[in-house]
This record gives sequence, C-alpha cells and structure tokens, in this order.
Amino acid sequence: MTVELLHHTPLWIASKAIRKCWDSTGNGGCYLIPTDDLIEKDKELIHRVGNKNKHASTLEHINYTFDIDGISRALLQELVRHRHASISVKSSRYTLKELKNTDTVEELRPFLVLTGDDYVDDLALGNLHNTRKGLKQGLSNDVVKYSLPEAYKTSCVWTINLRSLQNFLELRTNKAALWEIRELAYTIFDNLPEEHKYLLEEFLYKEEK
Amino acid sequence: MTVELLHHTPLWIASKAIRKCWDSTGNGGCYLIPTDDLIEKDKELIHRVGNKNKHASTLEHINYTFDIDGISRALLQELVRHRHASISVKSSRYTLKELKNTDTVEELRPFLVLTGDDYVDDLALGNLHNTRKGLKQGLSNDVVKYSLPEAYKTSCVWTINLRSLQNFLELRTNKAALWEIRELAYTIFDNLPEEHKYLLEEFLYKEEK
Amino acid sequence: MTVELLHHTPLWIASKAIRKCWDSTGNGGCYLIPTDDLIEKDKELIHRVGNKNKHASTLEHINYTFDIDGISRALLQELVRHRHASISVKSSRYTLKELKNTDTVEELRPFLVLTGDDYVDDLALGNLHNTRKGLKQGLSNDVVKYSLPEAYKTSCVWTINLRSLQNFLELRTNKAALWEIRELAYTIFDNLPEEHKYLLEEFLYKEEK
Amino acid sequence: MTVELLHHTPLWIASKAIRKCWDSTGNGGCYLIPTDDLIEKDKELIHRVGNKNKHASTLEHINYTFDIDGISRALLQELVRHRHASISVKSSRYTLKELKNTDTVEELRPFLVLTGDDYVDDLALGNLHNTRKGLKQGLSNDVVKYSLPEAYKTSCVWTINLRSLQNFLELRTNKAALWEIRELAYTIFDNLPEEHKYLLEEFLYKEEK
Repeated sequence: MTVELLHHTPLWIASKAIRKCWDSTGNGGCYLIPTDDLIEKDKELIHRVGNKNKHASTLEHINYTFDIDGISRALLQELVRHRHASISVKSSRYTLKELKNTDTVEELRPFLVLTGDDYVDDLALGNLHNTRKGLKQGLSNDVVKYSLPEAYKTSCVWTINLRSLQNFLELRTNKAALWEIRELAYTIFDNLPEEHKYLLEEFLYKEEK
Repeated sequence: MTVELLHHTPLWIASKAIRKCWDSTGNGGCYLIPTDDLIEKDKELIHRVGNKNKHASTLEHINYTFDIDGISRALLQELVRHRHASISVKSSRYTLKELKNTDTVEELRPFLVLTGDDYVDDLALGNLHNTRKGLKQGLSNDVVKYSLPEAYKTSCVWTINLRSLQNFLELRTNKAALWEIRELAYTIFDNLPEEHKYLLEEFLYKEEK
Repeated sequence: MTVELLHHTPLWIASKAIRKCWDSTGNGGCYLIPTDDLIEKDKELIHRVGNKNKHASTLEHINYTFDIDGISRALLQELVRHRHASISVKSSRYTLKELKNTDTVEELRPFLVLTGDDYVDDLALGNLHNTRKGLKQGLSNDVVKYSLPEAYKTSCVWTINLRSLQNFLELRTNKAALWEIRELAYTIFDNLPEEHKYLLEEFLYKEEK
Repeated sequence: MTVELLHHTPLWIASKAIRKCWDSTGNGGCYLIPTDDLIEKDKELIHRVGNKNKHASTLEHINYTFDIDGISRALLQELVRHRHASISVKSSRYTLKELKNTDTVEELRPFLVLTGDDYVDDLALGNLHNTRKGLKQGLSNDVVKYSLPEAYKTSCVWTINLRSLQNFLELRTNKAALWEIRELAYTIFDNLPEEHKYLLEEFLYKEEK
C-alpha cells in the first residue's frame, strides 16, 4: 500500500482556536505569526487543551487529506466505518475495465493484496482470473463484482480531522485489529507532518508489559 | 434478503417536536394524546414542516431499527457509506466458523447472494468451497477472508432516523443504483409502519416519462 | 426546569445488535423474547461490550427523546454544542408574543431562570419588563430579542442516543460545568428508565477524595 | 462583524477525489499539477459531479476555517445549530473580565451588536452597564452572565466543509432568516477564495420575481 498526504491544515489554526475560547490573544499569543514552526509555548498549549484536558473539539479544525492506494476491499469495509471522515473511493462498478487489458495470471498479481499464504493468494488469483474471463465475455460489472475476492485492491482519497484520526489510530493500531488496517494506521502516522506527530503518538498501540 | 423492523419511534414525537418550535401546544395541539393514530391535522403538519418547508431536523426524532439479513458484502460496502446511521454487522473475522459445519458445495449455496448469472454464481460457489477448505486446514479467519467472494452473505442491525432514511431511499431506489441495494431500499420501505410511509414515498424513484 | 422522557428504545435492541456481531444467536441468545426485563446475562453483555470493551457503536441503537422545559437560553448555548443529538427548540423569533399577555413585573418571573442572586435576578427582570414594553409598542421580535437577558426561559424536544448521552453526562455533571447544565444533566439521568441507568451511572461526576 | 478566512483546502483536492472514483487519472487528469489555478476542465468537473449530479461527498474534502468576530450571542444560537462544522467560541464564562476595564456607558457600545433601533439598543446598553456593576461588585461570571443581553458580542473560529457551507448559505441567506445571520452568510461568501465561489453562488438566496 502507499499513502500520500495531499494536504493538511497548519497547526497554528488549532492554537488560534484555543486562544479564542479564553480570549488570550494578547502579547502572549504567538499564533499571530502564522507559521508551522510554532514556538514551543503554543505546541504545549494545543497538547494540554486538546489532549490532556480533553477539549478535543479544538483539534477538529486540523484536517488531513490522504491519497491511499493499494488497500484491499476487505480493509475498505473497516475504513468506511469511521463516520467522522470523508472518503471518495475507486468504484468497482465503474473501473473493472482495468482487468480487461490483462491476459496472464501473473499480470493480475498487482491487482490483489497478497496475504503471504500461498493457498489463499492462489485462490484469490485464480478467482480473479475467472472473474476477468466473465468480464471479457461481456458480463456487466454489477454482476461480475459479486465473484471478486475481498483481496481485490482499491484506492481512495480520505479526509479526516485530528480528533477523529486520534480515534482511528487508537482503534486500528491495536493488536486486536486486522493486520492490514494496522499496517495502514502506522503508514498514515508515518506520513503525518513531523510537527503534528506529538499530538497523535500517544494513541498508537503500546505493548503491555 | 429479509428485513424486519425491530423498533420505531411513534409519529406523535415529531408532531410534539414541531409544535415546540412555535409553542403551538394550545387547544389545537393534538399530540397530547400519545398515539400512533394521529389525527389528520397532525399528520399534515409533519409533512408540511418536515418535507415541504424542509425543516428536516424535526424528522430526526423518529428512529427506526431494522434487522437486515442475507445481504452480500458487496452491498454492505454501499450501506455503510450512509454515515448518519448506526450499524452492528456480523463480523467475517469472528463468524467464518459457520462454514466449517458444511461439507458439500450445495450446502454453501445459502451463504451466497446469487446474481442469477450461472457463470458468476458458480464461480463464487467454487471459490467459497475452496475458502472453506482453507478454513478446515486451520488457516486463520484473518487470512482466509481475503479470498471470500463479495457475494458472501452478511447480516446487520441498522438504526437510522427518518431524515437520513429519506436520503437513503432517494439515492438507493434510483435506477442507477446497484440492483441489490435497490431491492434492499424497497424492502425497507415495505417494512416501515404503514402510518409513516406518506413521509417517505415521495423519495422513491419515479420513472421519468 | 422539568424533564420528561417521551420515548426510548428498549434495551433488548442493544443486546440484539451485539449478538449480531458474533452471530451468537443460538440457544444462549436471550434477546429473542423482546422485553425490557432482560435477564441478567444480557444486561451484563451490553455493559461489557458497550462500556468496558468500548465497542460503543452498539449503544447507538438506543435512543431517548426528552421534553425539556424551563431552561435558560444561557444553558441552551451549551446544550446545542452536543452535535450528536437532534433538537427542536422554542423559537424566540416566533414565540415572544407570550410576553404581551402579561402586565406586571411579577408576572414575568416565571419566564426567567432565577440565579438566586437578587441583584442579577432583578436586573434580568427589569430588563424583561422593558423588553416587553418594546414588544407592546410594536417592535418586531427580530429586533427586540437582542435585549433579552440570557436568563430567559426556553423549551425543547431533544433526542440523543445512549453513547452520546454518556458523553453528555460525563462532561456536564463535572464540577467545572455551568451550575444550570449540571442540574439538567442530573435531572436527565433521574428521568432515564431505571433498567438503563446501570449503563450511564459510571459517567456521572465523582468527587475526588 | 468581521470575517477573515484563515485557511482553506485548495480546489484541486476535490478534483483529485472525483477522478479517484472513476479512476480517470490518465492523460486527461489535470489535477496532477497541484495548483489553485485549475484549468477549466477540472473546474467544470467539480461543479458537474458535486453540484449537478449531487455526488456531494466529493465536496467534503474542501474545508474552510474562518475567524468570525463581532457577532451577537443571539446569532451564535443559530450558528451552532449547524452540526457539520467545528467551532471554538469565546466563552462568556471565562472572558467577562473584559468589561471590568471599562467605566462609562459609551465604552460598552463596542461590546454590543446594535440593531439600529434606539429603544432596544439603549436597553441592551443599560443592561450591560448594570451587569458590569455586578461584576465589579465581585459577582461570579456564572451568575452575572444570566443578565447579559443577547446583543452581547462574541467571537469564534469556525471550520466547515464545502458541502455543509452550501447548506448554510442556502438556509441563512434566505429572506426568512434572521437579519444578522443573513449578513454573516453574505460576508462569509464574500471572504471565500474567488476561484471557489462558482461552487457556492447558486445557493445564495434569489429574490423570486
């Protein structure tokens, strides 16, 4: 899978929002120079109010848009359950034609998320091969898609705010989560702006000792 | 598929909410006797304010909970995109053991949504047969699920309010919608309380002439 | 203030939703007899999954609709900040005529939330008296409402699900919350169905020792 | 009132999201050069899919953050009813001290939204004068705030996505809306990035002829 951060709100917006509540916009208010290089005082403020004091709505002003590619439709089932996010997904109803341009079984491999288990991977691959046959015979996408294996890859643009992303990371880096969404969660974290990570790292799963 | 309405809010609650806004709780306020058999005056009021005047938040007080069974995971991908609803879904990570109790291919048929196209249905069936083999060999659900065909049946409890359900019916009874979710949308409409239908029927797809 | 519970979803719906996820609808599934008198096993299940294991979406199927009367518009400012709820509020733009039917200052007292501080209460009362004068002189509601004191009473119908209500109670029974919304939060808790309270009482503020 | 746009997502993000759905990322896909100066083809695409075809979720990727200052608490009651937005508001519980630094009635004028009606404005002004007295006598904010007139000014940071902003503009530029929120709605529109306005202008109120 690949994850690319397409856009994000700079952090000083959260600082501005927090200072609005207490009207602390005086000489101590550092956000007045909009810059991602917030001085330490403002970074500490956002963490204290948003994370420690749980005034989490102040974190909602920060949005991230990711381009996520090469995840399975099995993972998609879980991703879309996060309702405080906006998603635009590659539609299997309109894009299956991509399979028609291939011939061999090997050419189908890049269209699947492989599990590493040969039995399951071969099964998915054989299945996709036969699904392609149906397509080439002229069956409609809306029928053919019912035999697609859940390993079939999809792609999306996903926008989520900082508060909702904290919740996503907490649930989906957990040891009990599906292996593929765990990988996605960590990959998303890795692709966050460096200066934002201190607000999210405490939500990553910690192995209990 | 089967749909059962498990619970719903009675309609007088919407009438009560609407009359609250204008404080019209005087002698003309008929909701005072909580009953589903609202007199015509109140039924007309809800339709006028909630539908015609688009003060649609007054309709959000009415909630429906459905038990939905026998839909495909292909359909589930679309159902969960309706974010103003609450859903509890049969988890493929925890319930695949149901396949282990079967032996023949024929026994697998009830686990699939059949499209009516023999090629695709046989493909999905053969695929499920081989997936079952993997399970019986001891592969974990979290790996095996990647070869499941999207025709594989699932089940859920779904709660949605009247406003959001209007939107669902409008989008999903549309001629352009996936055939299976169209069937679900109409089945849900059929299972609504009779006295609620007049608020939703205008959102069903109308063939243009 | 007065709070009346107008409607609620019975608890067995949550049990049904939870059992759906693991398909535990066999002989151990007790929800099959829909009744508020759930046997202990199911009550324990809901608490374990919804509260302890934080699979909180299963609690969203339970909705409550309250008739809330006699709260101030100061409190309303805070109540409407809970976005996972539906509210229909008595509109100050359309209902100020209620003041026109009164003459004395004493008659205005029931229209205000009194703080118990004579200075502030007299101020609000005098202010409302003068606002009424403006109304009687024919000024429009949309202008007159700008001089209304925040103590002015309003009324609403409020629908909220169990998960969101837990959050409301946690934030609004807190010692740091505004005194009037604390009172509302406790009054709402008191008006919940007795058999639901065990799912919410742990969210009430506990004095630290 | 003053409105300042603090941050916004560039428009090419919406184009990218839309092209994801149909996988139209080939040579016709112009968004590949991230720039606000989208070529006409992409601008037309966003309008067609997001507005005309009502695939409105693709517009949710575009977020705006505004600094809104000098609106009344009467208006705030309406603004916060838009639940698909994030708001951080100057708290009357924590910022009333600003009144203590003033002495004359004239100095209070900037703290109020004036209606233009002398009777109501003088009433609000006199009321604020007396409220200040209570503060100076040492009464707590949480009591004193109950006598504040709704004309009292507040300030907020408000983040809303393009889809939700379309709905806000449609409802709040309407002739039937409160005069002050109409002014706010038009002021917000004026402060949008020029290249975004074509997606929102059709939602502004049109006088029927």
